[in-house]
Amino acid sequence: MTPLLPNHWAGRWQYGTGPGTPLIDPVLGHELARVSSEGLDLEQGFAHAREAGGRALRALSYRERADLLGGVSEVLQAHREAYFEIAIANSGTTRKDCGVDIDGAIYTLGQYARWGRSLGQARVLLDGEAARLARDGAFACRHVLVPTRGVALFINAFNFPAWGLWEKAAPALLSGVPVIVKPATATAWLTQRMVADVVAAGLLPPGALSVVCGSSRGLLDALQPFDVLSFTGSAQTAALIRSHPAVAQRSVRVNIEADSLNSALLLPDAAPGTEAFELLVAEVVREMTVKSGQKCTAIRRVFVPQACFDAAAEAIGARLARITVGNPRNETVRMGALVSREQLASVREGLAVLRGQTDVLHDGGSHALVEADPAVAACIGPTLLGARDPGAAARVHDTEVFGPVATLMPYRSLDEALALVRRGEGSLVASLYGAEPRALADAALALADSHGRVHVVSPEVAALHTGHGNVMPHSLHGGPGRAGGGEELGGLRALAFYHRRSAVQAAPAVLAHLAPQGTAWTAD
Amino acid sequence: MTPLLPNHWAGRWQYGTGPGTPLIDPVLGHELARVSSEGLDLEQGFAHAREAGGRALRALSYRERADLLGGVSEVLQAHREAYFEIAIANSGTTRKDCGVDIDGAIYTLGQYARWGRSLGQARVLLDGEAARLARDGAFACRHVLVPTRGVALFINAFNFPAWGLWEKAAPALLSGVPVIVKPATATAWLTQRMVADVVAAGLLPPGALSVVCGSSRGLLDALQPFDVLSFTGSAQTAALIRSHPAVAQRSVRVNIEADSLNSALLLPDAAPGTEAFELLVAEVVREMTVKSGQKCTAIRRVFVPQACFDAAAEAIGARLARITVGNPRNETVRMGALVSREQLASVREGLAVLRGQTDVLHDGGSHALVEADPAVAACIGPTLLGARDPGAAARVHDTEVFGPVATLMPYRSLDEALALVRRGEGSLVASLYGAEPRALADAALALADSHGRVHVVSPEVAALHTGHGNVMPHSLHGGPGRAGGGEELGGLRALAFYHRRSAVQAAPAVLAHLAPQGTAWTAD
Repeated sequence: MTPLLPNHWAGRWQYGTGPGTPLIDPVLGHELARVSSEGLDLEQGFAHAREAGGRALRALSYRERADLLGGVSEVLQAHREAYFEIAIANSGTTRKDCGVDIDGAIYTLGQYARWGRSLGQARVLLDGEAARLARDGAFACRHVLVPTRGVALFINAFNFPAWGLWEKAAPALLSGVPVIVKPATATAWLTQRMVADVVAAGLLPPGALSVVCGSSRGLLDALQPFDVLSFTGSAQTAALIRSHPAVAQRSVRVNIEADSLNSALLLPDAAPGTEAFELLVAEVVREMTVKSGQKCTAIRRVFVPQACFDAAAEAIGARLARITVGNPRNETVRMGALVSREQLASVREGLAVLRGQTDVLHDGGSHALVEADPAVAACIGPTLLGARDPGAAARVHDTEVFGPVATLMPYRSLDEALALVRRGEGSLVASLYGAEPRALADAALALADSHGRVHVVSPEVAALHTGHGNVMPHSLHGGPGRAGGGEELGGLRALAFYHRRSAVQAAPAVLAHLAPQGTAWTAD
Repeated sequence: MTPLLPNHWAGRWQYGTGPGTPLIDPVLGHELARVSSEGLDLEQGFAHAREAGGRALRALSYRERADLLGGVSEVLQAHREAYFEIAIANSGTTRKDCGVDIDGAIYTLGQYARWGRSLGQARVLLDGEAARLARDGAFACRHVLVPTRGVALFINAFNFPAWGLWEKAAPALLSGVPVIVKPATATAWLTQRMVADVVAAGLLPPGALSVVCGSSRGLLDALQPFDVLSFTGSAQTAALIRSHPAVAQRSVRVNIEADSLNSALLLPDAAPGTEAFELLVAEVVREMTVKSGQKCTAIRRVFVPQACFDAAAEAIGARLARITVGNPRNETVRMGALVSREQLASVREGLAVLRGQTDVLHDGGSHALVEADPAVAACIGPTLLGARDPGAAARVHDTEVFGPVATLMPYRSLDEALALVRRGEGSLVASLYGAEPRALADAALALADSHGRVHVVSPEVAALHTGHGNVMPHSLHGGPGRAGGGEELGGLRALAFYHRRSAVQAAPAVLAHLAPQGTAWTAD
């Protein structure tokens, strides 16, 4: 039996009781480690974070907390190689795919360190100018943002054990709010190891960062009104979280990122042979295969003008056929495994659902595995489906298959295409491909209300654009409706979730004492 | 039997079926009218609002929609006298108290008309500047706010049938989002009448404004992912709303304003005889008695330095003794009725709970009623309670008695006082009374995280300050934790709830086409 990973809880390393839950190498089937949160004193850990961690963090200025983030980023950089080893073994994805998670985390921390330093020595954010409530401003109102006096609990997803922690922790810690992270059990090792390295470096005040691995039982019960909860995962779990008494009765603020049927849309003027067409094909293939399609931002639905359908099917299919699948330790392998056999079964189930309303344009089953035993490895080739009557294929618009699977669909008019994209009922991201700036801008605005992000790919940014599925810390990450209704990142916008806004109404002499303690909060 | 009030639903006036629910004059006990929502085709009404109303509103610019608000404000002004008649009869409060609701509504509409005009002919709000995502900004990100393509459903409280509608409808309509209001049944008449006048004036596009009176059954079931819901009422109903599938599963965005144990705090330096002391006494009495204490922002807890306790009890009690209670049609009456006999029973129950942990400093039972029959009228005198050991009086910090009731408490140190204020676990407003600007500013910042608003009263604003309980449209209205976690008003900040934020990532040539369609969104 492999060793248990300890939890960093109530300011010290503590082992859970019992045999724990094993973490498995999804390619080789080996057990890698075990996790358990059984027997931890949850109240004690929350209280330690809330009191010791919160007090210490709030005593620092934004600049000082930004410096902490910079320090964390350096610690992670120093241990980067170890993270790749853990990630390749535990996630089963290629080194390049692991980099999306690991280097994405380090980059995001660095950005928040930089943005945070710009806030200077303040401990309060000023939201807008003073508004007059009496003649000549003799009585006035000023809005401030102050750190919430609670903990930030993160319940995270298996696909980003590194970035998923730090993209949330960076704005939380910068805001002065202590963090408790509960990583998804399947890939908890990398999260646990990163926390261990940061704790060992002694950078953060005691209580600022805790990690609990294993079951999440009891965590929500421990939440109090000034805590916040950020959840990334399934819509089903999200519904349970929203109905939990902590949220429903105690108004714990919640951010949720759930399912998303993200779209790629080739504009009407982009025929086969145009650069926009080629850019769409390349991006679809990249999004289907990066991290074996296990990105919440991955392209699931591809819309092309009816006349382009066959050419798009052929071009995407031909590229997919060249994707080698198998053991990520083999350098010829382009796509590794899914995270577990359970996820493999779930992807196969989802595929069966979609196949009832689609044709198979490229069959992932045709890919032989490289250095991987199909009876053991959670590997599956990329599958492109096609729905020639997309209006009738309801499942394609509401069933997220969390693997290397996408569905190609033809449209007859741009209006129809935009309506089909909206059938996702709220998504994280849509990408647009075309060459005409005004048409692209208009389509982006038409989709903005149902997407947290619209990514526009035109020939002049072919080599520059940041990718449909890559989440840049500058940009909002989240989406309405099915996507959970959350907002993360977006530069300093992310700080709002960890602060409380308050209107201070007072005489100018009183307000004058607020300003020197604060700094302007801007979106940029 | 009095006549049924019709609902404005699916673009026309429709009567519910059945006998309906009676609205009662809470002073005289007469039936005034009846309401029923039985038999309405809810899906049809939501679809009409969402499609006809939403499309028509979104086709207008912010300036055009602001002009609509200005027109609505004029319509209400023209019918103002009729509203006072309805309000005095149906709410049972004095003309002055009805003015808080009616004139507050008209003022708030006027402010949003003014702020909205400043946004000009745009149809999109630009949130911050473009952020570079590639060298020289050759690929960049710009955040936009666009109106959500759904309806705004308001489930409102009985105490503000006028303002409660318009403080929410003004930012919703300005944002381009159609409104459906479900007023509390007890006082639905005024809301219904205002909608009737506005509809008759023909100002708003069809579908922009609907009213449904009576039961709320089925309304939440009709909500779709891009709709938003704003609820004002009890914490118990709030918990049911948060757990409803529309919210828990479909991510309908919700704003909630629930219970609040608002505080008034006399700073340590303000002894009896100081102006700050007198200002506290006057504000406590005003807040306890305006609208018979039925304001969610009313002062429920009063904290004074230990040495001031007896003097404060005496001063507040002496003023309360002079409050005449009874029929609001009698000009000598300072305080009318509660909204209903049910509320009277609820206030008496709450008083019994608090009395278990407090002393009665001024007994509302000692007030004889003016021109009101105690067996019929929902009248009750103002009661001041006292808790000499406030740390031990747990019920005082968690039980909101929604009537003319407050509890006076002594404190030994400012730190203890701030901790006691925070025992409310999140409130709408705290007010501070003192003369030293720095001390007031520091106390305001210390309470900002647990209060949506901190109202500071110092001698120089004695005649100017806007009142602890008055909600100015310039300032945030809402509060964390027990107060529901919502955010309303706050100038143009209110528009965020009715918009969706999206990050558009594109080449500068594409982003250049966004800017002319948008206008900068600022908090001020």
